[in-house]
Amino acid sequence: MTRTAVISLKQMAILTLGAALLLAPATARAQLLTFSNQDLIDYTAQNPFDRLPDGRPNVPDDMLERARGLSSEEVWAVLEEKGFHNQYADGFQVLHPGKTLVGRAFTVQFMPERSDVDGVAKAKAKARGVPRLTNQTAIDMLRPGDVLVVDLFGKKVNGTVVGDNLFYYVMQATHAGGLVVDGSVRDLDGLSEIDLPAYFRSVDPTPIGNVMLTGINIPIRIGGVTVMPGDLVVGDREGVYFIPPQAVKDVLDQADETHIHDEWTKKKFAEGKYKSSEIYSSPK
Amino acid sequence: MTRTAVISLKQMAILTLGAALLLAPATARAQLLTFSNQDLIDYTAQNPFDRLPDGRPNVPDDMLERARGLSSEEVWAVLEEKGFHNQYADGFQVLHPGKTLVGRAFTVQFMPERSDVDGVAKAKAKARGVPRLTNQTAIDMLRPGDVLVVDLFGKKVNGTVVGDNLFYYVMQATHAGGLVVDGSVRDLDGLSEIDLPAYFRSVDPTPIGNVMLTGINIPIRIGGVTVMPGDLVVGDREGVYFIPPQAVKDVLDQADETHIHDEWTKKKFAEGKYKSSEIYSSPK
Amino acid sequence: MTRTAVISLKQMAILTLGAALLLAPATARAQLLTFSNQDLIDYTAQNPFDRLPDGRPNVPDDMLERARGLSSEEVWAVLEEKGFHNQYADGFQVLHPGKTLVGRAFTVQFMPERSDVDGVAKAKAKARGVPRLTNQTAIDMLRPGDVLVVDLFGKKVNGTVVGDNLFYYVMQATHAGGLVVDGSVRDLDGLSEIDLPAYFRSVDPTPIGNVMLTGINIPIRIGGVTVMPGDLVVGDREGVYFIPPQAVKDVLDQADETHIHDEWTKKKFAEGKYKSSEIYSSPK
Amino acid sequence: MTRTAVISLKQMAILTLGAALLLAPATARAQLLTFSNQDLIDYTAQNPFDRLPDGRPNVPDDMLERARGLSSEEVWAVLEEKGFHNQYADGFQVLHPGKTLVGRAFTVQFMPERSDVDGVAKAKAKARGVPRLTNQTAIDMLRPGDVLVVDLFGKKVNGTVVGDNLFYYVMQATHAGGLVVDGSVRDLDGLSEIDLPAYFRSVDPTPIGNVMLTGINIPIRIGGVTVMPGDLVVGDREGVYFIPPQAVKDVLDQADETHIHDEWTKKKFAEGKYKSSEIYSSPK
Amino acid sequence: MTRTAVISLKQMAILTLGAALLLAPATARAQLLTFSNQDLIDYTAQNPFDRLPDGRPNVPDDMLERARGLSSEEVWAVLEEKGFHNQYADGFQVLHPGKTLVGRAFTVQFMPERSDVDGVAKAKAKARGVPRLTNQTAIDMLRPGDVLVVDLFGKKVNGTVVGDNLFYYVMQATHAGGLVVDGSVRDLDGLSEIDLPAYFRSVDPTPIGNVMLTGINIPIRIGGVTVMPGDLVVGDREGVYFIPPQAVKDVLDQADETHIHDEWTKKKFAEGKYKSSEIYSSPK
Amino acid sequence: MTRTAVISLKQMAILTLGAALLLAPATARAQLLTFSNQDLIDYTAQNPFDRLPDGRPNVPDDMLERARGLSSEEVWAVLEEKGFHNQYADGFQVLHPGKTLVGRAFTVQFMPERSDVDGVAKAKAKARGVPRLTNQTAIDMLRPGDVLVVDLFGKKVNGTVVGDNLFYYVMQATHAGGLVVDGSVRDLDGLSEIDLPAYFRSVDPTPIGNVMLTGINIPIRIGGVTVMPGDLVVGDREGVYFIPPQAVKDVLDQADETHIHDEWTKKKFAEGKYKSSEIYSSPK
Repeated sequence: MTRTAVISLKQMAILTLGAALLLAPATARAQLLTFSNQDLIDYTAQNPFDRLPDGRPNVPDDMLERARGLSSEEVWAVLEEKGFHNQYADGFQVLHPGKTLVGRAFTVQFMPERSDVDGVAKAKAKARGVPRLTNQTAIDMLRPGDVLVVDLFGKKVNGTVVGDNLFYYVMQATHAGGLVVDGSVRDLDGLSEIDLPAYFRSVDPTPIGNVMLTGINIPIRIGGVTVMPGDLVVGDREGVYFIPPQAVKDVLDQADETHIHDEWTKKKFAEGKYKSSEIYSSPK
Repeated sequence: MTRTAVISLKQMAILTLGAALLLAPATARAQLLTFSNQDLIDYTAQNPFDRLPDGRPNVPDDMLERARGLSSEEVWAVLEEKGFHNQYADGFQVLHPGKTLVGRAFTVQFMPERSDVDGVAKAKAKARGVPRLTNQTAIDMLRPGDVLVVDLFGKKVNGTVVGDNLFYYVMQATHAGGLVVDGSVRDLDGLSEIDLPAYFRSVDPTPIGNVMLTGINIPIRIGGVTVMPGDLVVGDREGVYFIPPQAVKDVLDQADETHIHDEWTKKKFAEGKYKSSEIYSSPK
Repeated sequence: MTRTAVISLKQMAILTLGAALLLAPATARAQLLTFSNQDLIDYTAQNPFDRLPDGRPNVPDDMLERARGLSSEEVWAVLEEKGFHNQYADGFQVLHPGKTLVGRAFTVQFMPERSDVDGVAKAKAKARGVPRLTNQTAIDMLRPGDVLVVDLFGKKVNGTVVGDNLFYYVMQATHAGGLVVDGSVRDLDGLSEIDLPAYFRSVDPTPIGNVMLTGINIPIRIGGVTVMPGDLVVGDREGVYFIPPQAVKDVLDQADETHIHDEWTKKKFAEGKYKSSEIYSSPK
Repeated sequence: MTRTAVISLKQMAILTLGAALLLAPATARAQLLTFSNQDLIDYTAQNPFDRLPDGRPNVPDDMLERARGLSSEEVWAVLEEKGFHNQYADGFQVLHPGKTLVGRAFTVQFMPERSDVDGVAKAKAKARGVPRLTNQTAIDMLRPGDVLVVDLFGKKVNGTVVGDNLFYYVMQATHAGGLVVDGSVRDLDGLSEIDLPAYFRSVDPTPIGNVMLTGINIPIRIGGVTVMPGDLVVGDREGVYFIPPQAVKDVLDQADETHIHDEWTKKKFAEGKYKSSEIYSSPK
Repeated sequence: MTRTAVISLKQMAILTLGAALLLAPATARAQLLTFSNQDLIDYTAQNPFDRLPDGRPNVPDDMLERARGLSSEEVWAVLEEKGFHNQYADGFQVLHPGKTLVGRAFTVQFMPERSDVDGVAKAKAKARGVPRLTNQTAIDMLRPGDVLVVDLFGKKVNGTVVGDNLFYYVMQATHAGGLVVDGSVRDLDGLSEIDLPAYFRSVDPTPIGNVMLTGINIPIRIGGVTVMPGDLVVGDREGVYFIPPQAVKDVLDQADETHIHDEWTKKKFAEGKYKSSEIYSSPK
Repeated sequence: MTRTAVISLKQMAILTLGAALLLAPATARAQLLTFSNQDLIDYTAQNPFDRLPDGRPNVPDDMLERARGLSSEEVWAVLEEKGFHNQYADGFQVLHPGKTLVGRAFTVQFMPERSDVDGVAKAKAKARGVPRLTNQTAIDMLRPGDVLVVDLFGKKVNGTVVGDNLFYYVMQATHAGGLVVDGSVRDLDGLSEIDLPAYFRSVDPTPIGNVMLTGINIPIRIGGVTVMPGDLVVGDREGVYFIPPQAVKDVLDQADETHIHDEWTKKKFAEGKYKSSEIYSSPK
C-alpha cells in the first residue's frame, strides 16, 4: 500500500463508518457506455436461472460447487458443440495454481484516461448519486460467489486493479470467489498469502492511474472472449472459461459422465493389459 | 475478393439498385452497447464547431486542409500541454508512407462472436430497420472527410475489415479520407494501388469472420487511446493522433509558428556558422 | 561473398569446366530421409499434368503465366472450399514487393548439424556419386520455372541459404522463378539489384553453416504448410501460397471470374450511386 | 477428456480387448517419410550398445539410472568437446521441476494436415496393416525406459499431443520415462497429478487436430536439435539434452569426476578460508 | 561445473592456498572505464552512513534487517515522492519466490569481447597487480551483506555469471546476500538447493565467455535503472528496487506506518461491516 | 519540433550568435564515467593512422571513400579471420535503404536519469566550463566524416536523440556522415527528407527526457558490439559494422579482390554454361 493510503489513515477518525451509501446497481451499471438493466435482461434472455438483484443471471450455488471439478478440456468440448468457439482466455499469471476458480462474472471496464470524457462521466455519476468513479466503486458492489472480471486492456504500469488490501476485501466480499484482470496487480508478496484465486497479466508496483472507469456489469472483452455479466467463470492452471448460463447444466452433466469414463480408462491402463487405442478413442 | 462475392455477382441482376434504404444514424449509433445521440453530444460538449447530421463534431474542411502539414511531434507538444497524454497510437503498418492521413473519426467496434448475444443484437437491429449488422453496415454510413477507425482487437485471421473492393468504396465515400484498424486487411496488392491512407496491424487472406459488430460511432479504444467519434485523426509515417475537436485550433496555430521557426533554424544551420545549442534549445 | 570463395578463384584455372557431372535426380532426391521417385509419384497421384524428369508434377508454363495475376485472397477462397486449410505461409521479408512470385516448388531441407549423422549421409552420398552435400548440390539441380523452397528452420546466424552470387545463379537457372526460405539470406544490398522474387525470414552477414542437408525434393514444412515438390508457388506482398497441382486449374478459372466481378464492382462504386452493401455481398 | 471419448465408452462393451494387434515396428517406422530399419542402423552405426527390437540403440538400464544425477552443464562440457554443438533444447514448460527426465528417445513427427497427402499415407498404412495413423498409433509402441519425443512444430491450438488419459498411459507404458513435445498438451490440472516428467511449449484445451502423422522413429528436429531414435534424453529444470549413444559413457564418467570435485569445492568454500579463484578455475 | 574445472582439480595440489593476494579495492574499481574512489565518494555525496573500506556507502546492518519486510509498493511510493522514477527493474526469473532479497549493491559490468581492447585492459590490470580479469576477480571482493549486481547486457548463451560452485561461494561470502544479473546463470538444479536469493534473465548450460570485464563497483545499468555501488537492493516476487542510501531511512519509516495501517485495514475488512471505499482511499 | 523550442525562438534575438564557446574535447570526453585522452590513446594503441584533435583514430578520407562499396558480408569475412566476432549490430530501422553509411564513430552514452547522480555530474561539468549536459553538448562536437553513435539503451518514449532540426544539423556538421542510435528518433517525416544515413530502433513523438548524459567518446555498447571512438562505421541495408582502425586496410583490400571475383562469377553464371558448384565454392 502506498503513502496516499496512509494519509487517509489519519483522516479516518472522522469517518462515519456505519453510514455506507449503497449504490443502486441499476443506475450504476455503466458509465461512459450505457447498458441498462433491461439491456442485460434482453441480452441474457436464455438464462434458465433466476437473477441477482443487479439483474445478472444467478447460476445457483450448488452448480458453482459442482463446477469446482471441471477442467478446461471438459468445458471446451461442450461449448464447442453448442457453437461457442470464443469463450476461453489464457496467457495469465495464475496466483494459486491447483486452486480452481469458480464464480459469477462481475464485469468492469476501464479505458485510457481522457480528461474531457472523464469529466463528463464523473459529473453524470455525481448527478446519479455516485460520488466517485474508481475501481473501489465497482469493488464495493461485489457479492458472495462473484468473480471480479476487469478489462484494463493489458496495461502494466498504472494498470494495477488492486493491491493487497483491496484484494483482501475482494476475498471477503466474494467469499473467495476470484479475480480475472486483463491488466496487472500490485504487491504480489501480499497477494500470495491471501486465499483468493486470481489471474492477471503482470505485476507492477505502481498504483492504478491514467485510466477511467467506463462500465460496470456491461459486456466486456478479455483476450478473445466477449464476457457477459453473470457468466459462469471457471479457471484452472491453463486459463479461464466464461460459460453462458444456458450452457452450464450441460457442461456439468457432461463432465460427470467424463469423470466416470476417465476413472475407468485409467484403471484399465493401470492393469497394463491394453493398448491405448483399444480403450481410448482419440478425439481426432 | 472471394468466391462468395462472385456468387453474388450472379444474383445481382435481380437487385433493385436504386432503392437504397438510408440508415437513420441516430438509431444505428450502437448495437450491443448504447451510446445515444444525446450521449455523443454530452460527451463532446466542448466541441467548438457545428455537428454532422449523425451528431459528430464537424471539424471544418479548411482545418482538415491545414492539418495535412502536421507532424506527430507538433501534435504531441500541444496535447501534452493540455493534459491529453493518451491520444497517440503506433505500431501500425502504413500503406502509403509519406502521404498524410487527415479526417474525422468514424468509429466502429467489433467484439468476439458470441451467438447468444449476437442473435439478440441482430433481432434488435432488424426491429429498428437495420437488415444486417456487418462491416458494410458501418461502411455505408461514411461521409466525405471521414476516417474509418475500427477496433478489431488486433485480430489477424478473420480480422480483415476490408479487401480491395470495400477499400475502394471507402476511398470513394470518404473522398480519400482514410482507414485505421486495430486489426487486419486483405489483398495488400490490390490496396497498394488505391490512393487511400491506411493504417493496420497485419494482413491476411481470410475474410472477416467470427466477430460481431457491437457499436458504430461509440467511444472505442485503439491501442492506448480512447477515440471519440468526430476526433480529428492525423497520421504520418510514425503513427496516428486522435485530437479532440476543442484542441484542433491550438494545434494548428502552434504548428504554423513551429514551421516558421524550423525553416529559420535549418537556414541558420545551413550557413554553418552556429553550434546547434546556439540556435536550438533542446526540449529537455 | 567471402574470402573462402576468393581462394577458390585461384584454384579455378585447373577446373575442367565443361565436364559437369549431372546428378541423377532419382538417386539424389533425399539424403537422411528417403523419398523415392515412386514415393513422389504416389503422394502426388492427383497431379493432372505431366511430370518433370525428376518426377515432380509439371504445372504447365501457360498456367504459370496466368498465375501472375493471382492474389492471396483468390487462392484462399478456392483452397478453403477444397478442404486445404494449411497452404499459406506469411511473416517473410519480401525482397521485391509488387513483383509476383510464381513457379514450381523445388524443395530442400536442412537440419541442425550432427556430425555422426552427417558423416553417414555424406558417405552414402559419395557412394551414389554425389561428391558433396551442400546448398549448391540442390541449387545445381534447379530448372526454369522453379521456385527454390528451403526449410532452414528459421535460422538466422549461419542460416543464409544464398548470398548474391548464388542468388544470381538461382535467377539464371530458374529464369527468374524465385526463392522462399524459412531462414535467412546474405548480402541484401547485392540481392536488391537482382530481379528474382525472394521471401526470407531475416538477413545475416554470416555464411551458411552448422547445418546438414537432409533432403532434396522431399515433403517439407514452411511455417504451417506441408509443401510438396511440384506445388505451384504463388507469392504477393502478403505471403506465399503452395497450391497442390490438382487445384491449380480451379484457382485460375475462379480468379478470372473474380477479376471481372471486381472490375465491375469498382466501376459501380466509382459512379457513386450505390451503397457498398448493394453491390458487394460481404464474404461473411 | 472430450465427449468424443465418452461416446466411445458406450461402444466399449463390444470391443474384444484381448486381441491387440501388435504393430510390426519395421513396417511402421515411418509414414510419409521413409526411414527403414537399415537406415536406422546405418545412421546410428556408432552405437556401442545392443539394440531394441525396433532397431533403436538400447542405452542400458544401469546407465539410465546413473544419468539421473546429470545436470545440463555436465552434458554440455563433454558433448562440446566431442564436437556436438547442437544437442540442447530449452524454452519448455517443465511439468515437475526438480524431477530429472531420463530415457531413450522414441521419436514422432507430425506435419500440417494436407488431405491429398494424408489420404495416400493412410491408404499405404492400411495396406501394411496399420488401421489408423494417429498419436495413439505411436503411443501404443512405447516401451519401458522410453521418452516420447514429438515434433508438433510448436503448434498450440490443436497441437496437444496428449490429455490426462493418454498421459497416464504413457507413464504406465514407459515406466515413468517421460514426454518432450515441441507442441502442447491438454488438461494441465490432470497432468500435474501424474508422476511423469514432461516438457512442452504450451497448454490448450483443444484436442489434437489439423495435423498428420508423418513419421515414427525417424530423425526429427526439436528446436535446434536433430534427435535420433535411441538418443539418451536427459532433462532438468533448464532444458533437455539429446545425447548420442556413443557419447553416453563419457558423459557419465566425466560427471562422476565432476561431482567429487564439486563436493570438494563446496566444502572448501564452506570453510571460508579461500577466495573463489584459489579453488575454482573459471571455465573461461 | 564443466570439465575445464575438473582439470583444475588435478592442478590443485600445487596451489599454495593460504597465500591469497587481496586485491586493493581502490585500484581495482574499474577496468576499461575509470571510476575512482574519489568519484564514488563524489557521486554518492548524499550518503548519510559511513563507508565500507572500498568506498561504498555502508547501509547499516539493522536497516538491512528492517528492509526484509519491505514490498516493492512501499518502496515505490517513497521514491516517487523523492523524484526517483527509475529505480525499479523487473522481468527476472526469481530463484526463491517468497524469500526477500536485501543487501548492498556490489556492481560489475561486462561488455562484448573485443580482443584489442581486452588485451590492453588485461595488461593494465596485470601492471596493477591484478593477475586476471574474470567474474571471479569481482566475486572474490564480495563482503557480508553484499548483493552482486551484474550487467551482462541480457546475454543468455555464454552470459552465465555463475554456476553452482561460484553461486555457493557468493552465498558464503555475502552471508546469503544475493545476486541480480541482467544475464544468465548455469546449473539451475544446483542453484535451487542453495539458499541465496537470485534474480536472472535466463538459464543456459554454457559457461561465461566472449565477454570482457569492464568495471567493478562503477555505475551500471540494469534494465531502466542506473545502479550505484552501495545502493540498498531490495527484491521480492515482482522485481528489484535499487534504493539510494539517502532515501533508505524514509522508506523504512514509511513502511512501518503502512504496515500498521494495512493490518488495521484488513481487520476492518474482516469484520465485514464496511465497504472498501469507506476504509481505504484509493491511491488514484 | 515542439513548443519548447518555439519559445526559444522568441529568446533568440538576444543571443550573441558568433561567440560560440568551443568545448575542449579532452575535458569533455566523459561525464559520469571517466575515459581520458590518454585512456583513448592506450586502448586504441593499434591504430595505424594519425589522430583527430579529440584523440580519436583518424581513418583517412580516401579509405572512407573506398568503404562506400563494402557490404556486411565482406566485412564479416575479414573481421572473423582476425578474431573480431562481435562487431556487427542489426535490428535497426534504416532511414535510407540503399544509401551506404560510412564514417568515424563519435560515441555518446546516456543512462536512466537519477537526480542525485546527475546533479553531481552537472556541477562537475559546470566547473569544467561545460554549461549544460544534453544531447546538444555532444552534437556540437561533431566533425566532418563522423557518425554519431548513441547508446540510449533501446529507449523509445523519451529516447529520441534528435528530431528533424538537430538531424539537419548533424547532416551539416558531419558532411552527411550518419547516425546510429540504440534508441529512437522524432519526426520521421521530417527526417525522411534529409539526406543523412540513419539507423534507429524506433520512432516516437516525445522529446528526449528522463535520461542523463554519462559519456562522450567513451567505449559504449550497441547491441552486442563494444564500440570504440574512432571505429570505422559501415552500414548497409542489413545492419552496421564497427571496424577497428587497425583492420580497415585489410577489409578494404580484401573487398577489392572479392569484387573482381564476384563480377567474374556472375559473368560466368550469365553465360549459363556452368553449374554453381563449378564456379563458386561454397563458404561452408
